Amino acid sequence: MPAILVGKIETMRAIDIIRKKRDGRELSREEINFVVQGTSRDTIPDYQLAAWLMAVVWRGMSGAELAAMTEAMLHSGEVLDLSTLGASMPGANVDKHSTGGVGDKTSLILAPVVAAGGLRVPMISGRGLGHTGGTLDKLESIPGFNVNLSLVEFRQVLETCGCAMIGATPEIAPADKRLYALRDVTATVESPYLICASIMSKKMAEGIDALVLDVKTGDGAFMKRQEDAEHLAELMVATGERMGIKVVALITDMDQPLGCAIGNALEVEECVEVLHGRGPEDLRELSMELAAWMFLLGGRAGNVDEGREIAARMIASGAAREKFGEMIRLQRGDACIVDDPARLPHARRLETVTAERAGYVTRIRCEQIGVASMTLGGGREKKEDAIDSGAGIVLAKKVADAVKAGETLCTAHFNRDERHAEAMELLRGCFEIGAEAPARNPLVRKVIGWPRGAAAEELATNAEARQ
Amino acid sequence: MPAILVGKIETMRAIDIIRKKRDGRELSREEINFVVQGTSRDTIPDYQLAAWLMAVVWRGMSGAELAAMTEAMLHSGEVLDLSTLGASMPGANVDKHSTGGVGDKTSLILAPVVAAGGLRVPMISGRGLGHTGGTLDKLESIPGFNVNLSLVEFRQVLETCGCAMIGATPEIAPADKRLYALRDVTATVESPYLICASIMSKKMAEGIDALVLDVKTGDGAFMKRQEDAEHLAELMVATGERMGIKVVALITDMDQPLGCAIGNALEVEECVEVLHGRGPEDLRELSMELAAWMFLLGGRAGNVDEGREIAARMIASGAAREKFGEMIRLQRGDACIVDDPARLPHARRLETVTAERAGYVTRIRCEQIGVASMTLGGGREKKEDAIDSGAGIVLAKKVADAVKAGETLCTAHFNRDERHAEAMELLRGCFEIGAEAPARNPLVRKVIGWPRGAAAEELATNAEARQ
Repeated sequence: MPAILVGKIETMRAIDIIRKKRDGRELSREEINFVVQGTSRDTIPDYQLAAWLMAVVWRGMSGAELAAMTEAMLHSGEVLDLSTLGASMPGANVDKHSTGGVGDKTSLILAPVVAAGGLRVPMISGRGLGHTGGTLDKLESIPGFNVNLSLVEFRQVLETCGCAMIGATPEIAPADKRLYALRDVTATVESPYLICASIMSKKMAEGIDALVLDVKTGDGAFMKRQEDAEHLAELMVATGERMGIKVVALITDMDQPLGCAIGNALEVEECVEVLHGRGPEDLRELSMELAAWMFLLGGRAGNVDEGREIAARMIASGAAREKFGEMIRLQRGDACIVDDPARLPHARRLETVTAERAGYVTRIRCEQIGVASMTLGGGREKKEDAIDSGAGIVLAKKVADAVKAGETLCTAHFNRDERHAEAMELLRGCFEIGAEAPARNPLVRKVIGWPRGAAAEELATNAEARQ
Repeated sequence: MPAILVGKIETMRAIDIIRKKRDGRELSREEINFVVQGTSRDTIPDYQLAAWLMAVVWRGMSGAELAAMTEAMLHSGEVLDLSTLGASMPGANVDKHSTGGVGDKTSLILAPVVAAGGLRVPMISGRGLGHTGGTLDKLESIPGFNVNLSLVEFRQVLETCGCAMIGATPEIAPADKRLYALRDVTATVESPYLICASIMSKKMAEGIDALVLDVKTGDGAFMKRQEDAEHLAELMVATGERMGIKVVALITDMDQPLGCAIGNALEVEECVEVLHGRGPEDLRELSMELAAWMFLLGGRAGNVDEGREIAARMIASGAAREKFGEMIRLQRGDACIVDDPARLPHARRLETVTAERAGYVTRIRCEQIGVASMTLGGGREKKEDAIDSGAGIVLAKKVADAVKAGETLCTAHFNRDERHAEAMELLRGCFEIGAEAPARNPLVRKVIGWPRGAAAEELATNAEARQ
């Protein structure tokens, strides 16, 4: 269409917006709204959205575009108003979001710890796919636990016990649902801009005041390279700030699984261990760090150290454990698992992988561990696959641990035979053993965001304390 | 999907091919075939094709990818085999393709000139859209002329008189038809790679041995910038060479309309003038140049000068004019228009634009002239619009012509009232008059392609001759 005719066009057209983005020009708030409304109202066809999505992957988005897109997606559906809960129970509404990894189970620890500490944690989570696990799948391994509450029920549980954990309801950010389904089949999932808008719109729909982001990087993470993780973190922090909530992002290590358990019921059991004051050191440490930041951003702590103290107290006093039981009960699950994890589903068969020689574990192929767990039945290759709650892997050794020849490196838990040999083959290739112990990676590699000065200072203190 | 699972996937998947192109990696011939077959067989949905197309706009294509795509699109449909025509009438099969412009009517001159000179010209053409005209619309202004021949009828006309001109039948490159419709609504028309594959697959389907490309550049062309025109020309020449045909591309001027007539019947009349040895100088010159290259590539001439001589002879002897009449008759049109152009449709109303002051025409806004002609009814704003064959514009002055105050610059021909005022407003803004005559642009700005050495040499000779 010749340029001189453009002025005659009365209404916005998707093709002009695609072309503008294709040519790297910034879209206006109105144009972004047009695309997002066209997505939720189904007035823009899939093929135009697909072309636009690929143009966004190519050209990226400005801070203003990203905030406009996040806001439009947020308002394509229902937004929880938690302000009226204030009367019955004061405290800010704070959530944590992780970009996902292997053995990444901190949500199940954080919700009760932070709720026990007096903040509200309205958590809307997702499912696992490929090598990564999902919070909903882990929760569903608890007999009876219902993640499919309505928003009204969600609100009731939240009001009663201070935390609640559900899956996204159809009312939450419907534009994101259509866009995500389309991204999934058009190789446009990986754009940090689209990831940011998708995550932030869904999190903002929870009606939260503050958000702690756990942006994973390393072999088992979505973002293998730290610079990509930092870029995504910067986008999310900036978008949250533009939209008026407090956000901090911790760039954390996913070069080996977090904790020792991978697989749904196995991970719930490990979380219960941590709530009892036991469990693997790295999982305990990261959970305490994330909880500390949630307490800081939620106004319960004046600094991260105070936040850490509150978190530690919630574990030591048993308050967090009790809170976890209360939430499970309110969501119709078997709360007895908190004191008797044997009630969780267990796999019938175990098989170990042992060390061929003595030395130190120099590397654990994290993504491959995730794939092995999936192959054992603990995860999904495709969305429609069924999960075996009891299946998974328990690591006996982690990076830098000393190991003797013949000693167990990990144990596979499984029920299904079909792909067992394939999974064991993968598992045997996961461990590298060398003559010298490697340096341990710091768990928190960087802190990005609110308040910028304080975050940097905390990180320095943190790093010093570790030396 | 983790990399280590990729080996397990038995069949190709569109998403992997989109991802590969998105990441800038080269697709294999098999992957390109998968996409093109998925297009013509409808096994890849529009949204995946749209994302892939945008990724191609972004990442481009290698020479090997482009040839593979052109070949796959060519073989998605029927390919004419003209080799058996050799017995009844020897001579190579040669075509010309133009990237389109304003007043660009050389096809109607070239087909009869080159056929009269002993080559076969199997021409499958397109329609006009926006500011540019289309050969089929021009032909259809000849009363009775049928551009919708079947491939069998096309072949018969070609065998009988050496040239035939039709529109693309459903059998020709069906993959291109679906892709083009999708590109049109996803802002992916403008990729030189996709343009190249689209043009070359359709031209190759004609079963030609050689192709002369007229790649227009300037204000009225699709490629405003000469470097873009040259890039497209290079791609088309290289693709043709990889596929075993002789190709040359002339980069020609479209900073003002070609000839004086714009509009369908008006342009046919101007072509008849040229076939009578009269008509505007630039149109005559470019037609002779293109014909000369067709004679050279088709083996009728040893060099371009010889080609020019043959072309001039075909006009002077009346052989080309007769050939035009023969083709029109065989395609059921009124061949009497060749000697009596008054039989063509004419607009009922004329209105002139006159010069406000004396001087020299320094510029004619070429795209705007095309839009004005479209607005008068001579073209289409949207594909489904009906064309008024008699409508259009006749230029009385061209760039560098001297003009007196009050003298006619151009005349609008029209029947419809609705948008007449708008068109006249556009027309009045098309001419710029200055105190000094500007230098005339060379008509042929560059020659690219076969045989590389000879082409360069010809251009030099050509340029020298003009000095």
